[in-house]
Amino acid sequence: MYIGVDLGGTNIAVGIVDNFGKIHYQKSIPTGAHRKSDEVIEDIINLIIQVIDEYGLNKEHIKAIGIGIPGLSEPITGNVIQCVNLNWSKIPLKRIMERILNIPVFVDNDATLAGLAEFEIGSMKGKNNGVFITLGTGIGGGIIIDGKIHTGVNGIGSEIGHMVVGKNYYDCNCGRNGCLETFSSATALINYTKKLMEEEEYETLITEKINGDLNNLNGKMIFHAAIREDKLANKAVDRLVKYLAIGIINIASVIDPEIFVIGGGLSKAGVFLLDKVRAEVLKNKFIKNLPVGKIALAELGNEAGIIGAAMLGKHNKF
Amino acid sequence: MYIGVDLGGTNIAVGIVDNFGKIHYQKSIPTGAHRKSDEVIEDIINLIIQVIDEYGLNKEHIKAIGIGIPGLSEPITGNVIQCVNLNWSKIPLKRIMERILNIPVFVDNDATLAGLAEFEIGSMKGKNNGVFITLGTGIGGGIIIDGKIHTGVNGIGSEIGHMVVGKNYYDCNCGRNGCLETFSSATALINYTKKLMEEEEYETLITEKINGDLNNLNGKMIFHAAIREDKLANKAVDRLVKYLAIGIINIASVIDPEIFVIGGGLSKAGVFLLDKVRAEVLKNKFIKNLPVGKIALAELGNEAGIIGAAMLGKHNKF
Repeated sequence: MYIGVDLGGTNIAVGIVDNFGKIHYQKSIPTGAHRKSDEVIEDIINLIIQVIDEYGLNKEHIKAIGIGIPGLSEPITGNVIQCVNLNWSKIPLKRIMERILNIPVFVDNDATLAGLAEFEIGSMKGKNNGVFITLGTGIGGGIIIDGKIHTGVNGIGSEIGHMVVGKNYYDCNCGRNGCLETFSSATALINYTKKLMEEEEYETLITEKINGDLNNLNGKMIFHAAIREDKLANKAVDRLVKYLAIGIINIASVIDPEIFVIGGGLSKAGVFLLDKVRAEVLKNKFIKNLPVGKIALAELGNEAGIIGAAMLGKHNKF
Repeated sequence: MYIGVDLGGTNIAVGIVDNFGKIHYQKSIPTGAHRKSDEVIEDIINLIIQVIDEYGLNKEHIKAIGIGIPGLSEPITGNVIQCVNLNWSKIPLKRIMERILNIPVFVDNDATLAGLAEFEIGSMKGKNNGVFITLGTGIGGGIIIDGKIHTGVNGIGSEIGHMVVGKNYYDCNCGRNGCLETFSSATALINYTKKLMEEEEYETLITEKINGDLNNLNGKMIFHAAIREDKLANKAVDRLVKYLAIGIINIASVIDPEIFVIGGGLSKAGVFLLDKVRAEVLKNKFIKNLPVGKIALAELGNEAGIIGAAMLGKHNKF
């Protein structure tokens, strides 16, 4: 058995996962992200011990622990480089946890691990080369090359949300202009829809949903309206799709994978979003008579985080 | 010994290359690109036989033949998908040549093979992950991941010239807008310099070099003027560098390699270009406190094509 830990800005989820990626038992607690890293790590360790115990196993039954973090890590050392939302910087997470638990611990980025879960038992299963794209508050990536996670040498690989794909009307948090996540994340979708509503160019179904306060706007409302042929909502979604397609083709122009898998909160828009992305990629290929990798929706939901983290233990040799 | 063939739009070059990437003998003839592919392939085969013979070897001494083509291929089948400059489409090059020569033949893109040469004996030597960027008429790429050539599954990988990096004032040949090669190739540099000269915004040293005809303009003239602190030339070079840096960081946001190597005609601008690219990449990193891969100039010149093609034979198991 493996332990998978999904460390998020809101919750810590811990699960017991078998060799085939099936979760047998799981539990979650609030992260309390305002606290010091020591306290959060102590909670993670206690939750792991509790989950193992409650499921009726001993530490000896656990081959490895994988942890998905909402930030950057050095996979080899297991050090966290930084997690902006947790206010973590340079934390030897693997070393701290192994010293206390005496079980091998592996650390990687959460989007990378959600991608690994899709590779093991989801949409990428059976493919050797694939790219997982998570559309949430930001945009993250998980890249599988030749059947292995590829995160690069400086910790900045598969950070596809920061690929520049055009010129935008506002700058990215990273200080640059044109990053994919300023066009195609849930945040970007909401920002652009707000802008359109403030400009009052069109009547929109969204108006009645927000109770007079634009701060109530969310991605789900926008997609719901778009599916009901709302012009403003479709304008916003189409812009998201246009730049997402550029991002997908840009990635293809580098590593040309077999498959792109779209996950994260916005992927709940399902086939409506998928069809638009496929059509836009097809329209914009740079070599018209050659295919771009298949595009699919993620098959695993929230549990991808735990599963992928557990599979990280399985993927590593130790 | 291996045979490396560098098939270009202008010349066919064939060389005998040893295990260490050293060329022992080489010869070249005009491609005659206007002719049918059969005739060009016949010339390639005859030149190979001639080179082997003149160097005093027999076919039995040659372990494999590698061919770099100015276009797209399927590395597994050895089929040429297309070479626009040669007007080739769907040609089973490997099969044709193996049937006649009875020596294993391998086919790949010329930029990919120049990258392989740099990996074997040039700037990328000793690195396991690197990206070769060739700045010529267009922009090509050669990608090494985990010590192996990575070209992807549909034949469109490492075509980094078609990565969209911004919005440009003219469209790419591929029909899209914003491709890296419309900003940072020699052609793009010349186009933009012409535009600046036509707008007559600045006096420029270039004027006296072109003998009154803007068609005489070339990349060398522009870099010569830029080095001599010519304002117009530097404006054009800086634009090239700005978008090249975006392209480099975009690639890093996907595969985060150890090194980027700049080759092709424009790389003759040497340290002047290199320093500008390094500074621009440093200025534009999306995570300020993490490094991007090293940036270096290609070490091999024109012979990279023959060497890389020969090394393709060595890299393949047969």
